[in-house]
Amino acid sequence: MKIKVINPNTTWTMTDKIGEAARAVAAPGTEIVAVSPAMGPVSIEGFYDEAFAAIGVIDEVRKGEAEGCDGYVIACFGDPGLAAAREVARGPVIGIAEAAMHAASLIGNGFTIVSMLERTRATMEHLVHAYGMSHKCRNIRMTDLPVLELEEEGSNARAIIVEECRRALAEDHSDSVLLGCGGMSDLMAHITKEIGAPAIDGVSAGVKLVEALVSLGLGTSKRQAYAYPVEKVYTGSFSQYSVPARKA
Amino acid sequence: MKIKVINPNTTWTMTDKIGEAARAVAAPGTEIVAVSPAMGPVSIEGFYDEAFAAIGVIDEVRKGEAEGCDGYVIACFGDPGLAAAREVARGPVIGIAEAAMHAASLIGNGFTIVSMLERTRATMEHLVHAYGMSHKCRNIRMTDLPVLELEEEGSNARAIIVEECRRALAEDHSDSVLLGCGGMSDLMAHITKEIGAPAIDGVSAGVKLVEALVSLGLGTSKRQAYAYPVEKVYTGSFSQYSVPARKA
Amino acid sequence: MKIKVINPNTTWTMTDKIGEAARAVAAPGTEIVAVSPAMGPVSIEGFYDEAFAAIGVIDEVRKGEAEGCDGYVIACFGDPGLAAAREVARGPVIGIAEAAMHAASLIGNGFTIVSMLERTRATMEHLVHAYGMSHKCRNIRMTDLPVLELEEEGSNARAIIVEECRRALAEDHSDSVLLGCGGMSDLMAHITKEIGAPAIDGVSAGVKLVEALVSLGLGTSKRQAYAYPVEKVYTGSFSQYSVPARKA
Amino acid sequence: MKIKVINPNTTWTMTDKIGEAARAVAAPGTEIVAVSPAMGPVSIEGFYDEAFAAIGVIDEVRKGEAEGCDGYVIACFGDPGLAAAREVARGPVIGIAEAAMHAASLIGNGFTIVSMLERTRATMEHLVHAYGMSHKCRNIRMTDLPVLELEEEGSNARAIIVEECRRALAEDHSDSVLLGCGGMSDLMAHITKEIGAPAIDGVSAGVKLVEALVSLGLGTSKRQAYAYPVEKVYTGSFSQYSVPARKA
Amino acid sequence: MKIKVINPNTTWTMTDKIGEAARAVAAPGTEIVAVSPAMGPVSIEGFYDEAFAAIGVIDEVRKGEAEGCDGYVIACFGDPGLAAAREVARGPVIGIAEAAMHAASLIGNGFTIVSMLERTRATMEHLVHAYGMSHKCRNIRMTDLPVLELEEEGSNARAIIVEECRRALAEDHSDSVLLGCGGMSDLMAHITKEIGAPAIDGVSAGVKLVEALVSLGLGTSKRQAYAYPVEKVYTGSFSQYSVPARKA
Amino acid sequence: MKIKVINPNTTWTMTDKIGEAARAVAAPGTEIVAVSPAMGPVSIEGFYDEAFAAIGVIDEVRKGEAEGCDGYVIACFGDPGLAAAREVARGPVIGIAEAAMHAASLIGNGFTIVSMLERTRATMEHLVHAYGMSHKCRNIRMTDLPVLELEEEGSNARAIIVEECRRALAEDHSDSVLLGCGGMSDLMAHITKEIGAPAIDGVSAGVKLVEALVSLGLGTSKRQAYAYPVEKVYTGSFSQYSVPARKA
Repeated sequence: MKIKVINPNTTWTMTDKIGEAARAVAAPGTEIVAVSPAMGPVSIEGFYDEAFAAIGVIDEVRKGEAEGCDGYVIACFGDPGLAAAREVARGPVIGIAEAAMHAASLIGNGFTIVSMLERTRATMEHLVHAYGMSHKCRNIRMTDLPVLELEEEGSNARAIIVEECRRALAEDHSDSVLLGCGGMSDLMAHITKEIGAPAIDGVSAGVKLVEALVSLGLGTSKRQAYAYPVEKVYTGSFSQYSVPARKA
Repeated sequence: MKIKVINPNTTWTMTDKIGEAARAVAAPGTEIVAVSPAMGPVSIEGFYDEAFAAIGVIDEVRKGEAEGCDGYVIACFGDPGLAAAREVARGPVIGIAEAAMHAASLIGNGFTIVSMLERTRATMEHLVHAYGMSHKCRNIRMTDLPVLELEEEGSNARAIIVEECRRALAEDHSDSVLLGCGGMSDLMAHITKEIGAPAIDGVSAGVKLVEALVSLGLGTSKRQAYAYPVEKVYTGSFSQYSVPARKA
Repeated sequence: MKIKVINPNTTWTMTDKIGEAARAVAAPGTEIVAVSPAMGPVSIEGFYDEAFAAIGVIDEVRKGEAEGCDGYVIACFGDPGLAAAREVARGPVIGIAEAAMHAASLIGNGFTIVSMLERTRATMEHLVHAYGMSHKCRNIRMTDLPVLELEEEGSNARAIIVEECRRALAEDHSDSVLLGCGGMSDLMAHITKEIGAPAIDGVSAGVKLVEALVSLGLGTSKRQAYAYPVEKVYTGSFSQYSVPARKA
Repeated sequence: MKIKVINPNTTWTMTDKIGEAARAVAAPGTEIVAVSPAMGPVSIEGFYDEAFAAIGVIDEVRKGEAEGCDGYVIACFGDPGLAAAREVARGPVIGIAEAAMHAASLIGNGFTIVSMLERTRATMEHLVHAYGMSHKCRNIRMTDLPVLELEEEGSNARAIIVEECRRALAEDHSDSVLLGCGGMSDLMAHITKEIGAPAIDGVSAGVKLVEALVSLGLGTSKRQAYAYPVEKVYTGSFSQYSVPARKA
Repeated sequence: MKIKVINPNTTWTMTDKIGEAARAVAAPGTEIVAVSPAMGPVSIEGFYDEAFAAIGVIDEVRKGEAEGCDGYVIACFGDPGLAAAREVARGPVIGIAEAAMHAASLIGNGFTIVSMLERTRATMEHLVHAYGMSHKCRNIRMTDLPVLELEEEGSNARAIIVEECRRALAEDHSDSVLLGCGGMSDLMAHITKEIGAPAIDGVSAGVKLVEALVSLGLGTSKRQAYAYPVEKVYTGSFSQYSVPARKA
Repeated sequence: MKIKVINPNTTWTMTDKIGEAARAVAAPGTEIVAVSPAMGPVSIEGFYDEAFAAIGVIDEVRKGEAEGCDGYVIACFGDPGLAAAREVARGPVIGIAEAAMHAASLIGNGFTIVSMLERTRATMEHLVHAYGMSHKCRNIRMTDLPVLELEEEGSNARAIIVEECRRALAEDHSDSVLLGCGGMSDLMAHITKEIGAPAIDGVSAGVKLVEALVSLGLGTSKRQAYAYPVEKVYTGSFSQYSVPARKA
């Protein structure tokens, strides 16, 4: 099975870290391809960044279909481009926010999301609402750290995040913590150990959920909402994204 | 006041029609600039199309800021790029689905959306949910017509739409109908007259709501979620969208 | 266009202030008629007061229909009599709580209501729930000041309110503040400037929304819920409110 | 115990019927006082009617407090004036829509409301939403009969209602039916027998719920929302409703 | 009328206390039978305990049907076995969490639950959600005391609970407090007096609600969800719970 | 990895079928142990049956902990005993309704449940509500077939179910179908092929989700709601279920 893990930003040190996290949990027969798009923002910290990152994600899924990928993980906690990517893909596509929330739902009664820049709180609120997780999500805690701080040597970002996770358990009546950024994917084991409760990384969870679905023979349903894109002309600099007629 | 009405697809016959609908309701001092992006899909019929259309919308809002626009209307019933556009804009940005739903809420107790391709039902469901309109939206009726059918001479699309609007009133306990496509913006008066109840076009509603907000001195709040994008490098073919530092 | 702005209480100093706020934002061709009912409570601080104020509002809308009014604003943050007034009116009727919530929804991601007596919190909660604004309203902050304190010379009510608005931004993750009382209608510009984020007055917003709807040719839908009242005899001291048969 | 059952309209034949239904279920020591207000609409079929009926209800509760009433039932399925009446009353106040919905919740899993004029559907929808009964209410079926049809000799209204109740069980997956009008209060036993499932009359249910609460020593909580009205001057024709200072 | 009040745990000192509370409010003609099951946990502090307690409850309802009981109260704030008991019973069955929440809804605008072990918070959250009481329940406060602490002579549990109830009123904008454990059933009057607002015991409320329903001729609806159990063989140690065919 | 798949009823032909479905999807290193409890109902068709089945499930999970099981699947679409089983287990426990709903959420936009006896509709409604899946579940279709009909040679149950699945796609705007009974676990491939869209069996999905969680090192969180049961005496015939003190 071949799973493409797409880091929607273009910071390859983060992509490599995400790839490692994915490979660490992948089943023996699973090949992980970890990539960043050819273009786009170096980090994703708002709706503007997400819009461009979505195109990068779609681009990689389109390529992935040609490369024979069986499923995809979108490794940014805002799940940019998820719905569009589902239209393009035959197999399953899972965002890491989605993956982490579903995993937490299956092992506990309520979770807290711990994430980075305060301004991106809205994205997480929208996802919680859209995924029907309002009854499970007890709090969203933003550390207000920039995303790329996680890539800095010697930064105290990890210590701040661990401390916030601790507060989540103590104050929110939560029984697990979601690591709200692809750049935290190397912290799952460390934080779980530090806080004595599950700290869930969506990259890891996403890989296992894609594996599970593919093993079940389940791909994205091609009825209704996520049917393949309609044949269509795209103009100008997006003309390469035109949708040709599908063969019967 | 200068309002940019952005048709997110690149079919200029539709853009012209939308511009006319906008000008027909604009206040004396309002200048309407109706545009399509320089690139993107010729119609928007799914999440894939929306993702690319969002970039076109953002592009036009970026230009609009330089051109001194006071507000924006996104003239596609999926409101593509709305959140990102709000980050970019100083003034208000309104999507036509949003505009139509808010207008209907203020003049009635429950509405039905009448729209085009069945597969885009999901987009409308997501918007209804996200905008808190679940208690107001009584039904979503898809005619399953392609969007560009509305641009065809001699098509019976209008007759089919009128008939569906009639059924909405008769069967859904609705008191108004929302015209669920930018391409229907010339039908508001006609359908209203035919069905004897308000048929709301979001383009017209959007223009008046932007005018209202601008007159109140209200632009997009720059606290929290819709603050200006963070200074950032964009790589590759999106490098032109890099966000420079803002001047104090 | 003639818009009647009804202050549902009978304190005319407040009515005058409300009228000024309305006129300050009205379009050139809009005539503002600001009134209080002929009878009722001098301020509205609970459900009992609201019930009587509703009759005053209805009375003024009935008169307004005869006077040729095109639309109405109910200038009390509990929106008393709104549904009944909609039955009576041909044109649109908007409450200031409703107007402020809708305006805030269009320019931001989440608001806080700042208002007066603690006991009226329930009214605001009910409106937030009824209007589908639960996902937008992040907090309701009551200063526990009596409504008429706003009319007192030398009161420090304004300073207390500004301070509460500041706390709303700092603690609630809100990006705008709603001024939760008709008596605050003169504070919009002042507080906006003080807190550096939109402080929305529902009177101003209501006038602009009514103008917008009337310009669109939209009045209250006469299908279903807000159809004109049914022909009916009223007995006793309310006999003047009997509903005659409507002419075809 | 003295319970005042207030028929909010001024049709005394209906009031008498309601009084009989109340007495039929009242406990031995309970005195039922069934009244209509001194003024107001002869039937309640919309928000306009409800607004005036609310004043009549408040008026009767005010008198009731002087008369030593221990609790109140508001015998119209729109529960007009309920919140205001709660402020005035020391004891409990229950509306018949509220009573019927709570009773149905305790004996079944889902109910259908069967009621009269189509246009009043909105009132029932609002109540279902406001009372948190959305998960219990499976349908609202309007027969589109005028309320006073129930008072007509020889009308086939009853037969139509029974038939609609039957359909509710057969088509809505409901296990009980709520009789959605005070004028149906004599039909509980008859319809229950006809359809072989509970047909719940809110007047009967309301009386028993008030008895239950009073026996428990529970009156309307005077903290927060339903505290006694604030001391206040009422002007004009409503001056009699001024609120005097309460004695310590 | 004969009402069986079932304390689902097997601590008879608590059962006696519960029986006393029930008898104190029962109507003259009501016989209260207070029991604990023949088997099960000595206190209920989690889902595991609830599962076994449910069987005890069902067992007592089965016996109760043979004994001619007219209704049942399940006297544990998690309402264990409620749905199953409803299938078995002809008459009404009410849980004390359900009873307390409904009573609070009828006399106030918002309540706080005050209860025992922190870990059982989830049970109460699930009930609030399932009963549609999310808009009424403002907080759940766990004192983290073990349930049997309430049976200890000289414990300061009562003082801790009273203090928490006080905080509920002061901090939660609540107007009543629900006593979230069957073992608190003797505290209703005491706490009500101490805090100056209704403190509602579900045992007392449950008895009066059952009386009310039975007086109305309402038992559990035998249509749909709560129809009598289907004829069926039970194997092994549960064979005594096999369901025989019902006589026509 | 050792996963125990518990068929909560005591019909071993069904247990065998469920075991086969589980083994068909299990990963190479996964051992499937498929069991029925030692006691309980031969099929589960209501809340009464579920209550007893829950004890059987708990019993098997208790044994499973001693046997070294890493996770559990509860193979009845009502997920009986799920919360209690989570308290007992160190590893993950998943119900098949839960598993199927989560899987459907990840590959589509909306599902329909197709199941057996009409009376059990309520169980499914409760689960949909409790799991936050209201926005995903578009319909619940009951064929009104008894559960054991699926075990009968020559029954036309399968044909009826396939037909209902077809209708689900055609009429409900669903893009997948959930097989709402453990006894349908052999039909996933067949129905998927027949209807041309995913038909999801919860047994298969449950096994893969348990595998995924265990591989991630995630067991049931032992903080808060699902902590191990509290040390406690059980009396009477349940004394064997007493909870001993846990060793540090």
